[in-house]
Amino acid sequence: LTAGGSPFGDSPGGEFALIARHFLDLVPGGAESGVLLGIGDDCALLDPSPGHSLAMSSDSLIAGRHFPADSDAEGVGHKALAVNLSDLAAMAAQPRWVSLSLTLPEIDEDWLAGFCRGFAALAARSGVALVGGDTTRGPALVIAVTLLGECRSGQALRRSGARPGDAVYVSGTPGDAALALRLLQRGEAPPEALRRRLERPEPRLELARALRGVASACIDVSDGLAADLGHICAASGVGARIDAEALPLSAAVAACGDGRQLALHGGDDYELCFCVPAEREMMLGLALAEDAPQCTRIGSICAEPGLWLLDGEGVAAPLAAAGFDHFAGG
Amino acid sequence: LTAGGSPFGDSPGGEFALIARHFLDLVPGGAESGVLLGIGDDCALLDPSPGHSLAMSSDSLIAGRHFPADSDAEGVGHKALAVNLSDLAAMAAQPRWVSLSLTLPEIDEDWLAGFCRGFAALAARSGVALVGGDTTRGPALVIAVTLLGECRSGQALRRSGARPGDAVYVSGTPGDAALALRLLQRGEAPPEALRRRLERPEPRLELARALRGVASACIDVSDGLAADLGHICAASGVGARIDAEALPLSAAVAACGDGRQLALHGGDDYELCFCVPAEREMMLGLALAEDAPQCTRIGSICAEPGLWLLDGEGVAAPLAAAGFDHFAGG
Repeated sequence: LTAGGSPFGDSPGGEFALIARHFLDLVPGGAESGVLLGIGDDCALLDPSPGHSLAMSSDSLIAGRHFPADSDAEGVGHKALAVNLSDLAAMAAQPRWVSLSLTLPEIDEDWLAGFCRGFAALAARSGVALVGGDTTRGPALVIAVTLLGECRSGQALRRSGARPGDAVYVSGTPGDAALALRLLQRGEAPPEALRRRLERPEPRLELARALRGVASACIDVSDGLAADLGHICAASGVGARIDAEALPLSAAVAACGDGRQLALHGGDDYELCFCVPAEREMMLGLALAEDAPQCTRIGSICAEPGLWLLDGEGVAAPLAAAGFDHFAGG
Repeated sequence: LTAGGSPFGDSPGGEFALIARHFLDLVPGGAESGVLLGIGDDCALLDPSPGHSLAMSSDSLIAGRHFPADSDAEGVGHKALAVNLSDLAAMAAQPRWVSLSLTLPEIDEDWLAGFCRGFAALAARSGVALVGGDTTRGPALVIAVTLLGECRSGQALRRSGARPGDAVYVSGTPGDAALALRLLQRGEAPPEALRRRLERPEPRLELARALRGVASACIDVSDGLAADLGHICAASGVGARIDAEALPLSAAVAACGDGRQLALHGGDDYELCFCVPAEREMMLGLALAEDAPQCTRIGSICAEPGLWLLDGEGVAAPLAAAGFDHFAGG
């Protein structure tokens, strides 16, 4: 850990001290945190649980690329952690420890305080302790997060377990985040609920826990439903058919002329797409908590590689796996 | 893991695929790597060793701040990993798994290939497997590394164990890296050996292992010897006296008018500064391998807080703990 003390001109620890302070306020430590030694030595020392595997995810967010540069700081803090929590949810891992490296073009204490509020509030809710990181002055705002979690050995959900005949499910209403972004980019204000779907995505950690022993494969929807289902198919050596009429659209997305396209190809939803063998579909209903997000059966896995979209008459058309490329104009 | 596939315009995985390819060539996988699932799912899945603690270090390097923007790519790759390995060495942890997040202003395959050669060669030598990360286009070159290692429970070296009467040691010849940087900044070419001390620092992993059960406290010298010894003192609630005449200077540093200042305050050496209780000093000589770097006793820990520099007559003057601030002109 270099808390801003590099010989090459890092700021003298002030910002990281601020971050740590915000976390100390919000994130409980104690023995159950598994933190033997937190911020303040060369490394953090952590106490992993016996009989568990470690899950590790690293995702960076860059201003102007992963979020508009003028985004609300609290939302950016939330999202920087949420996208990593979503990766752990996709494997049904329990998040535990996080490291945060911030590159900051300038020191804006208000912005940092807001960022910390968003990041730390979600960390506290998710049982995650901040154990390291650094802050450095640099030409652009770059937020690099590495998250560690645990799951019982052999219980992680992978992308590679889908088999022909499995049902394909998605949680929530994909396409909402892409619609919110489209409205913002047009200069229109999205309804608050839609905007939160883009700026405050809720990682599906509890849903993922319920899927242990039920789902055969799982991924989080970050690139877009079709693209991410394509990742499952590629890893499993199978294909998938999606029933266009089964796609769960929110009212706002359904009202768009291209609502299904948004649901299939819009990214950044951080819902889960997962497969369930036929003999376990009954278990799924039992496993889901009463307040679980809606899970919709949208298709099935087939042996033939590729993605196919079925229309109302059951006619299949090839479906491109590519996601949107909003910012890059692709 | 998002291998460059964000909906917001990350490049389509080409760079991270290149990185992974370079690693596959160099870093052996297999059961002993502890990697259950590497690059290509939402998270890496790792198998921690029973009876061990995890050590986690995150350090970012930014072009123009932590290294000159025109640095040799292979050296940058080496150093990005070396500074994190050095943090693990400071705790006597065995490095195991690394995640690499690159923000790149442009795609330069030659640069990336060189970067990977440097990073992967040091990873292979150190027994470290690349298990995740991402690449993103952004306005500046930012290299964010998170390294995980292990040490037997209770055997980690910490900053907080120094006690009055302990001897203070430093490995190698501190000040070399700062002298090399000074020459480069003046437009002079440093001798090759000196330049390597700046650009290819060798993390003291083996030395650190030898210090287990011998040293009472340890830190790696990144901010500068005085500053880092100051961190030990602060964490241990003690002070230290350094014998100016005992400082081990390389011939090049000794030839400078301010060689001792360089040795005391120059950063980026990635040597170890450690404390040894009097009754264990004999063990130190036995523990060190024949090819271990030179370890020099430079002073002792005292009860009174603060750092003191003793001249040839034993007269003590207060010593500022501040390190250099080369790039920022501080």
